[in-house]
Amino acid sequence: MTDLVGRDDSGGVATLTLNAPDRLNALSDAMLAALRARLAELAADDAVRCVILAGAGRAFCAGHDLREMQDRRRQADAGAAAFRDLFERCAGVMLAIRALPQPVIARVHGAAVAAGCQLVASCDMAVAAEEARFGVTGVNIGLFCSTPMVALTRAIPPKAAFEMLTTGRLIAAEEARALGLINRVVPAEALEAETAALAARVAGKLGAAVRIGKRLFHDQAALPEAEAYARAGAAMTENMLLRDTDEGIDAFLGKRMPDWATSPE
Amino acid sequence: MTDLVGRDDSGGVATLTLNAPDRLNALSDAMLAALRARLAELAADDAVRCVILAGAGRAFCAGHDLREMQDRRRQADAGAAAFRDLFERCAGVMLAIRALPQPVIARVHGAAVAAGCQLVASCDMAVAAEEARFGVTGVNIGLFCSTPMVALTRAIPPKAAFEMLTTGRLIAAEEARALGLINRVVPAEALEAETAALAARVAGKLGAAVRIGKRLFHDQAALPEAEAYARAGAAMTENMLLRDTDEGIDAFLGKRMPDWATSPE
Amino acid sequence: MTDLVGRDDSGGVATLTLNAPDRLNALSDAMLAALRARLAELAADDAVRCVILAGAGRAFCAGHDLREMQDRRRQADAGAAAFRDLFERCAGVMLAIRALPQPVIARVHGAAVAAGCQLVASCDMAVAAEEARFGVTGVNIGLFCSTPMVALTRAIPPKAAFEMLTTGRLIAAEEARALGLINRVVPAEALEAETAALAARVAGKLGAAVRIGKRLFHDQAALPEAEAYARAGAAMTENMLLRDTDEGIDAFLGKRMPDWATSPE
Repeated sequence: MTDLVGRDDSGGVATLTLNAPDRLNALSDAMLAALRARLAELAADDAVRCVILAGAGRAFCAGHDLREMQDRRRQADAGAAAFRDLFERCAGVMLAIRALPQPVIARVHGAAVAAGCQLVASCDMAVAAEEARFGVTGVNIGLFCSTPMVALTRAIPPKAAFEMLTTGRLIAAEEARALGLINRVVPAEALEAETAALAARVAGKLGAAVRIGKRLFHDQAALPEAEAYARAGAAMTENMLLRDTDEGIDAFLGKRMPDWATSPE
Repeated sequence: MTDLVGRDDSGGVATLTLNAPDRLNALSDAMLAALRARLAELAADDAVRCVILAGAGRAFCAGHDLREMQDRRRQADAGAAAFRDLFERCAGVMLAIRALPQPVIARVHGAAVAAGCQLVASCDMAVAAEEARFGVTGVNIGLFCSTPMVALTRAIPPKAAFEMLTTGRLIAAEEARALGLINRVVPAEALEAETAALAARVAGKLGAAVRIGKRLFHDQAALPEAEAYARAGAAMTENMLLRDTDEGIDAFLGKRMPDWATSPE
Repeated sequence: MTDLVGRDDSGGVATLTLNAPDRLNALSDAMLAALRARLAELAADDAVRCVILAGAGRAFCAGHDLREMQDRRRQADAGAAAFRDLFERCAGVMLAIRALPQPVIARVHGAAVAAGCQLVASCDMAVAAEEARFGVTGVNIGLFCSTPMVALTRAIPPKAAFEMLTTGRLIAAEEARALGLINRVVPAEALEAETAALAARVAGKLGAAVRIGKRLFHDQAALPEAEAYARAGAAMTENMLLRDTDEGIDAFLGKRMPDWATSPE
């Protein structure tokens, strides 16, 4: 498991690396399990305040493992139960990224395709190299990217999403940025440093406050505005009652640096 | 009816043409009925894998037929029942475009105004000539574009939509593209060819997969993400069990062209 | 109260000015109450057809009054009840802007930060000077901008919103425009005139129609499309039955100016 999804911690930032470069980091059963396990590990780790998700080798992630999927057709039900189970596990990983207490930043250096593009859409933020490419290409081989669609249509405008899904076209990093799929595009040689800088900035904030905020971000997204405000008011109150928030505000009013108990820096 | 909405099929693509150029293709009772009938026809036609919606004459579509609407005021209830019925039938046509199994591309060469702009917003994709103009101009004559608003606010960001609706301002094609109302802008002389190329690309995909995908696209849009994933997993499983999808994936893995039973090409 | 939120009416446009420049127009208890009272006043005033919201002094609005908030910690419950009450009152003001019958345009000449940025996001439209800056900076002092998030995530794409919220970064007016947070950016010296021109254009429309439209705009936003159309059809019918709409359409068809009973111009 350690090999399939590497983990490297530094300064409150954990970097997870999909590590099956010969399979273009395809989301095989083993890869999904390894990623899910890493996310569970991080969810319980208070020392981690931001997460980077990267891929080893040429691609970021090429989507599902098609050979493994085809093998399941030999079962009595032609694979129906296995496919249902696979898509449920895969959606579970995507939703676990949303549910992770810490912000997750995709660091995209190469192709992010099908469920790989879904992974980028599911992360809270994304930084990409100029060479990165994004697509929901399943339609090209007769398998519409229906599950990637769920994350994609919550990240970019509908007409652009529909075109990507029905044409299978790859888009360049700059177009992905303009659509809102990623936050910024940088030269390949600057990708690690720029992503690390963004992660460090987030990791430098009060972790407990960021956790309250990220949880609410996804919880309130689909609610009517008045209901969303009811939840947000409760979240703000919880946040105000943190000792470190008292200190943070006092420090700001006193024009000094905060002395936060829970921040390692 | 054939005259009011023309139909021309070629290579799996059906082109519907609003054909009342002297009325700027206004959505009269007869036009709505003709369009609804054409959509019903297409829904039952498996040979059609993509649809283009165009307009004859100077405009794409100028919206409702105002003279016909004013005539209804002579009724005992000042037209109340007739207006309710009209807006219900019009919304029915817009929702029938969403519900149509095949993707629908608006090909916009001129003005798309009020319910004509709603028509563009309701199509799955749109290609426009540089000269095309878009607006929800009802407010200029005292009739706020409330029903067009439903489609418009689901296509473009809210502050831009609010401005268009309350100022009645026409926007140019390039601004419509930047806002996400249309997919691309091309010179007028390239409009037919570019739209045809996009339609051909979509029509070249496995029709059954595209149908599964389009249905889900609209069904899942307003759902909470976890519910959307439950539906998407079911759609992916249904898609995987298609014989042609088995063949498509096998062909991809074997680096050969798929031999699809249901595709005419 | 008159001093804290000024009001100036001209040509059917009411300009409200947050007037605590030495506190950067912070949303203190008194300011929230004054703003709420002004909104209630306007809601009952049929002569007002558009509202501009501006700020006096250097900033547009710097968010909550942090000193006042810190004072509440001395209570027996460490301020919990007071904080809940504050966030409820603040959300009430934001929702009162949405519920106001007239369109509200934010005129942003300087910093709009935290709940000040939420105010901009809550207005129906916004015009900003090139020097204006926007941010949800609470995270920098340990208080995540959870309530501002509600309005922000309904105005701009999710990945950009998440970045603003977790980095506390200020963005420039042009970036705010590209994201959809504001409608347009103008040189500082043109800000008043451009905002006035937009307000005058809206105020020149039939007020009753604009009221029907604005109410529906917010009511239908989170509904499934078919439900939204049911409400929109009712709104259009109500609009059609207005005497002035009859006149507006007749005038348009007769190529003459409408003679509207309810419009002062």
